[in-house]
Amino acid sequence: MMQNILFGFIAKYISLTDEEKNALLSLDLFHSVKKGTVLLKEGQKSKESYFILNGCIRTYYIIDGEEKTTAFYTEMEVLTPPSVIRKTPSEYYVSCTEDTILTISNSDMEAEINSKFPKFEIMCRILSEELLAKQRIDFDEFKTSSPEERYLNLLQKRPDLIQRVPQHQLASYLGIKPQSLSRLRARIIEKKN
Amino acid sequence: MMQNILFGFIAKYISLTDEEKNALLSLDLFHSVKKGTVLLKEGQKSKESYFILNGCIRTYYIIDGEEKTTAFYTEMEVLTPPSVIRKTPSEYYVSCTEDTILTISNSDMEAEINSKFPKFEIMCRILSEELLAKQRIDFDEFKTSSPEERYLNLLQKRPDLIQRVPQHQLASYLGIKPQSLSRLRARIIEKKN
Repeated sequence: MMQNILFGFIAKYISLTDEEKNALLSLDLFHSVKKGTVLLKEGQKSKESYFILNGCIRTYYIIDGEEKTTAFYTEMEVLTPPSVIRKTPSEYYVSCTEDTILTISNSDMEAEINSKFPKFEIMCRILSEELLAKQRIDFDEFKTSSPEERYLNLLQKRPDLIQRVPQHQLASYLGIKPQSLSRLRARIIEKKN
Repeated sequence: MMQNILFGFIAKYISLTDEEKNALLSLDLFHSVKKGTVLLKEGQKSKESYFILNGCIRTYYIIDGEEKTTAFYTEMEVLTPPSVIRKTPSEYYVSCTEDTILTISNSDMEAEINSKFPKFEIMCRILSEELLAKQRIDFDEFKTSSPEERYLNLLQKRPDLIQRVPQHQLASYLGIKPQSLSRLRARIIEKKN
């Protein structure tokens, strides 16, 4: 079942032969991890990328003893940490906010697949460009919006996220103090009634 | 001279044969544009990417009649607007904050080059991944920093930018009100003395 989700995702970019599918299946990509599992720690060297089949992971920094959540990745989203691309120690932590089923691939594995099947190279290029575009728009929206606009924007674009992640992580992700987020939510609910 | 800068940049990723260099040179890539030139407007459809050889361009939105600057691109930096990747009308404006020499390529041209010379495909993949990593770190730093920390961070990482772009654009880029940026600068200069 999980295989079909992965192959469905890939099919948006390239069409795979049975040989290519089997090459992927031989890689032991699929993992099931419990809520709270830390996949990557600050300072750790890693070659791993994640593709979420079911569940949710988040990235966070610990600054002056406080967690600062910067991103969430849910179903059909891909995360290659910057430190994996740059071959440096990780700047941040990655952990599971839910029980999560995901693929974990590593960059050596990817290099081998890409050189054996050049169409994977093309998929990686297109996917990276798409992620770059999406992240740019997210960043620009963050820069040009007030905290209230950011919350309303998320409510429209990702209502599921507001339900499924803890409020203090959501506040941090939106660049708002937790108390301000509570007030903001109360104000919005009041307006609706 | 400008050709050598371009080839020097490419050489960090792939090595080019004379045939490949000539294919690039036949494309009329090099342009010289005056300060103030608008390269892309909000709502416009475009296939163009920019690589800055000398000068500076910026991206900005016009929101409620006010310009909001979100990014600057200077020497050796590449910009492919999200709308070019997504084939949608542009979300923002791109203009030159200085007289600028740059290459302008278009996505049809790139597709042709990539299919003729697969090593360009590899370069585009690596470059996109690097840009994705850099942009993620920039975004995370923006989210987890106070306005003062953002300014100090820029002072350390890109002192040239602080000198070469107008203060109101810089304030907007840092997500600070122009008056707050003036106060912040005054405070920092005071501390130094």
